[in-house]
Amino acid sequence: MPYVNIKVTKENGEPTIAQKEELIKGVTELLHNVLGRNRASTVVIIDEIETENYGLGGESIRVKRQMKG
Amino acid sequence: MPYVNIKVTKENGEPTIAQKEELIKGVTELLHNVLGRNRASTVVIIDEIETENYGLGGESIRVKRQMKG
Amino acid sequence: MPYVNIKVTKENGEPTIAQKEELIKGVTELLHNVLGRNRASTVVIIDEIETENYGLGGESIRVKRQMKG
Amino acid sequence: MPYVNIKVTKENGEPTIAQKEELIKGVTELLHNVLGRNRASTVVIIDEIETENYGLGGESIRVKRQMKG
Amino acid sequence: MPYVNIKVTKENGEPTIAQKEELIKGVTELLHNVLGRNRASTVVIIDEIETENYGLGGESIRVKRQMKG
Amino acid sequence: MPYVNIKVTKENGEPTIAQKEELIKGVTELLHNVLGRNRASTVVIIDEIETENYGLGGESIRVKRQMKG
Repeated sequence: MPYVNIKVTKENGEPTIAQKEELIKGVTELLHNVLGRNRASTVVIIDEIETENYGLGGESIRVKRQMKG
Repeated sequence: MPYVNIKVTKENGEPTIAQKEELIKGVTELLHNVLGRNRASTVVIIDEIETENYGLGGESIRVKRQMKG
Repeated sequence: MPYVNIKVTKENGEPTIAQKEELIKGVTELLHNVLGRNRASTVVIIDEIETENYGLGGESIRVKRQMKG
Repeated sequence: MPYVNIKVTKENGEPTIAQKEELIKGVTELLHNVLGRNRASTVVIIDEIETENYGLGGESIRVKRQMKG
Repeated sequence: MPYVNIKVTKENGEPTIAQKEELIKGVTELLHNVLGRNRASTVVIIDEIETENYGLGGESIRVKRQMKG
Repeated sequence: MPYVNIKVTKENGEPTIAQKEELIKGVTELLHNVLGRNRASTVVIIDEIETENYGLGGESIRVKRQMKG
């Protein structure tokens, strides 16, 4: 019955559709295995975030990637 | 004064603009009627989610729709 | 299938358990009526927020209530 | 680098502290394994929800549990 | 270490990339100055919301803007 | 008009009521200064998270604090 929201940056074509299915399945199994919660009503929502909209340590991931480049 | 967030899959051109206005109005009225909260400061934010990003029961709605098709 | 999160201040013993049931039922019906979405998998989560933790217009509801008092 | 929010009902003393550590570790590993994301900056926040505040299918989990009892 | 989510309407090309960097930096500094929290692990995620998906006072910002126009 | 949610661990009696007022005021001013958004309808909600419910790098802040102690 739990609800899970995953926010992850969208980078180089990832997460792909296959990776998102793996995340949905993996989180649902984890909650079932650890807490015994019902898989059927477990909701997982994935938000793909542009790197310019995800900040860490006071700057966006977009800026961090450019400085590494 | 309440804040409401609605996450709904985007399917077959829905929710339309008109449906979203109905949701905003309907939720605001409901909170006013049940709790007497001020309509003017009630915030409703709608997130439209791709079917591949919404998981239920360990798989995405995208996969569920394909299996029915 | 939608997911709804309602954040509402906790004031004078409200929302009561009965009011919360009304909100859950009302939002689920609204989404069914407007969008035709499946009631059975609609999730509604209510967060009750202390007035000191809910800000509007640059000050908390706690401060707003005191100034009116 | 991802952010994950887990909302789960609080029932019969669960989730325990040990279960919550397992969830935090498990989700962080999953995101690393599937997407190769950096474990060090992965944030996982768990919200424990009272059964009267979690609605599914138009009624709260509190009511669902009572009807089974 | 805090996590901050900002939801803001997308209007007339704003927020720009430069404005979003300012928001990320500003919120991170604020949390450091007020609470002494570690800047390095502060996460800020910005969601840009279409005006038709942001409701205030029972109608969308899209409708509000049209009535002013 | 923006909506902001701040999630911060609850540690050693902080954030205090005064600190929370500062956060609400500071974020509202920041959004006004950077984006010119209306202060009156800016909503800021603060969630105080137990250290055992906030994970970073695969373990809870609770565990991190104990290892430093």
